[in-house]
Amino acid sequence: MKRILISETPQKIGEKIKLSGWVDTRRDHGKLVFMDLRDRSGKVQLVITPDKEKAHDIAKDIRNECVVEIEGVVKERPGGSDNESIDTGGVEIEVADLSILSSSKEELPIDVSADSMDLNLETLLNNRTLSLRNKKVNAIFKVYAEVISSYADILRKNSFLEIKSSKILNTATEGGANFFKIKYFDRDAFLAQSPQFYKQAGVSAFERVFEIGPVFRAEPHFTSRHVNEYISLDAEMGFIEGFEDVMNQLEKTLAFMFSQIKENCQKELDLYEAQVPEVKTIPRIKLTEALNILEKEYNKKTDKVDIDPEGERLICEWAKKKYNSDFIFLTHYPSSVRPFYTMPSEDPQYTKSFDLLFRGVEITTGGQRIHDYDKLVESIKKHKLDPKDYESYLETFRYGMPPHGGWGMGSERIVQKILGLENIKECVLFPRDVKRLEP
Amino acid sequence: MKRILISETPQKIGEKIKLSGWVDTRRDHGKLVFMDLRDRSGKVQLVITPDKEKAHDIAKDIRNECVVEIEGVVKERPGGSDNESIDTGGVEIEVADLSILSSSKEELPIDVSADSMDLNLETLLNNRTLSLRNKKVNAIFKVYAEVISSYADILRKNSFLEIKSSKILNTATEGGANFFKIKYFDRDAFLAQSPQFYKQAGVSAFERVFEIGPVFRAEPHFTSRHVNEYISLDAEMGFIEGFEDVMNQLEKTLAFMFSQIKENCQKELDLYEAQVPEVKTIPRIKLTEALNILEKEYNKKTDKVDIDPEGERLICEWAKKKYNSDFIFLTHYPSSVRPFYTMPSEDPQYTKSFDLLFRGVEITTGGQRIHDYDKLVESIKKHKLDPKDYESYLETFRYGMPPHGGWGMGSERIVQKILGLENIKECVLFPRDVKRLEP
Repeated sequence: MKRILISETPQKIGEKIKLSGWVDTRRDHGKLVFMDLRDRSGKVQLVITPDKEKAHDIAKDIRNECVVEIEGVVKERPGGSDNESIDTGGVEIEVADLSILSSSKEELPIDVSADSMDLNLETLLNNRTLSLRNKKVNAIFKVYAEVISSYADILRKNSFLEIKSSKILNTATEGGANFFKIKYFDRDAFLAQSPQFYKQAGVSAFERVFEIGPVFRAEPHFTSRHVNEYISLDAEMGFIEGFEDVMNQLEKTLAFMFSQIKENCQKELDLYEAQVPEVKTIPRIKLTEALNILEKEYNKKTDKVDIDPEGERLICEWAKKKYNSDFIFLTHYPSSVRPFYTMPSEDPQYTKSFDLLFRGVEITTGGQRIHDYDKLVESIKKHKLDPKDYESYLETFRYGMPPHGGWGMGSERIVQKILGLENIKECVLFPRDVKRLEP
Repeated sequence: MKRILISETPQKIGEKIKLSGWVDTRRDHGKLVFMDLRDRSGKVQLVITPDKEKAHDIAKDIRNECVVEIEGVVKERPGGSDNESIDTGGVEIEVADLSILSSSKEELPIDVSADSMDLNLETLLNNRTLSLRNKKVNAIFKVYAEVISSYADILRKNSFLEIKSSKILNTATEGGANFFKIKYFDRDAFLAQSPQFYKQAGVSAFERVFEIGPVFRAEPHFTSRHVNEYISLDAEMGFIEGFEDVMNQLEKTLAFMFSQIKENCQKELDLYEAQVPEVKTIPRIKLTEALNILEKEYNKKTDKVDIDPEGERLICEWAKKKYNSDFIFLTHYPSSVRPFYTMPSEDPQYTKSFDLLFRGVEITTGGQRIHDYDKLVESIKKHKLDPKDYESYLETFRYGMPPHGGWGMGSERIVQKILGLENIKECVLFPRDVKRLEP
């Protein structure tokens, strides 16, 4: 007999079927043993009666999370016991045969079957391969998969080409000390902090490119919104008329992503009582204006140069109040806080760049880039870097480079903020931080 | 006026339009200057007459690969001069205005506009951001993008969940010395050689997972089919009844991918006169049988244990002759040449594993894995490894793990073999080998 999925059982009333999955819970009612069986499609109740001796013997002692295969008949549940919280609540399986495919060797250290496990982060992550089996934790990664697939879909539709760039570099991309060093055969190399240079090279060949890939940041952060390795959603587009075009494309991209998440992940969103905002025109204000608002309306002291995490949180509050928007673009960051390749604005103290904030945190950084060779060399020098270290990068600009811009977006922060999770590490399958390299 | 794409020009005869792109070639016919303009959608001929003084002055001295913006009127080409090799061969643009967005500073080191550049590999890669602009080189990455997107599409349709696993590990995954070492804050770490352990953990939570991501191999290879960083197409599936299920799923996956490539990349395939094979049932023979065939039919000496690259080439020849198949599965590799997690076959000297060969090279390695905790510990010991080094991996098997298997597939090799390219580095945007970390 061929295995069917649990979600198919309500359509098979009266039929003999075969299921496989994990024992989610077990309740021993003297003679009757009830179990919830779980597979990738959902859960269903099994009933094992004493007359099925072999099955009953196994069921009496079985541990949660054992992997089993059962054969049985799908029955309508006797009136009144329907369980409305699951799709298969109207049926149960009268088990004829039960066999163990793989046993659970020990008592579980955490209760995987709980609606909400309510564990501290360390316990959750230390028991990662178990905690991932919990329905609510599991749901995070279904939303995550939708984030990356919808991102690729919309950009492909907008004629961006998907590229994959190397993560091993011979120089530190953007200056700074936040690099992991590798021993690369007989020399040193570095892990890519972003695909920035490669996606710009991509523009010179393909006009529009995007990349979904890991980036590595050797920052000794201990915050709820940083990890040392994450998946960046990058894009870069040529022939823009201004950096507004980049923001427009980003709005369009997010609008599609959020509509897809709403459409395809409603069950997962419901587990977190999460609301997915509709993305329309996102308010855009200059960073200096934002800093003024913080001083005037929130009585917050700022350094008048950049915004700190608390400022980001407050300006999002302000945008929600003023525009009923969960998003806000801050634009025109000072040159001093942006990388050398950022296009200066009309007032060269500032740049044609932006951050996009969502529910209190920055999820995207982007802007227009300098496309003129000589201006780029000048800017490298102005940032006290050596053009010699950027020779291979500068090659891209030697033979005709269109005006262009793009962004880098943290995929995990999007999921964190949509589901309202406390720590970004909950959205990473196997997160890496200063102390954690396991599992 | 809003820029349109070059591919739209045949539908705009008689209209005034704006285009932007690169100067692909220029021909100075005394008074008339002809240029081919190139954007991401194609090429079209521009005609600049002397009466358009400003445009004519610029055009007379312009270098190839300059980025320009033009306004002009779309005209039907005078009879006889239609260029059938490009889609826009029936039209040309009578230029009214021409301005340079970004100039080409120097004579080009390579002829980007050539139909086939015919460069040696070093020159091609040393001038990577330029050589990528060549139509034929460019086409490789359109096929590449189709490989990865069609892979994701079919697996999603088959209810595999896309995951992203960490590339920084605290131990060498599968033993061996082929690891790049990282300085990770105050300790050592390693770059992932494969997502093997994480996709198995994925099975225990999601049943079916796939991953598209970089893998890093510190092998000092100097061959035409190896690079030190490549994109691996991984998948892992639970509740299989045998490793044949894995091969069946792989066949299904490749059939979809190859049909999509044929459907969506015909232009690119034509540039290489490439034939995409239809994937039907792929012949499956045991490795020992393959070695016998090599000895008998090709008079090739083998070590009776494993197959070498020449053997792979010959057995593909044989499969083509005997089954008219571009693919062949070799199965039941000896335990001695497979990693410790490979499921032994009925005869424990051999394993439930396979390689898939395509046109002379291995493109996929896969098989069933051991899912029983005790057997896995035993196998680790048998492979002279220490179970203590695998504690965190073993956790996955402690609490019920279904029978499962999967594969890892080299995305670049598929493109190389479809297009008939000599060296795999041609299929990597910015390839990394023992000597090359640039650009």
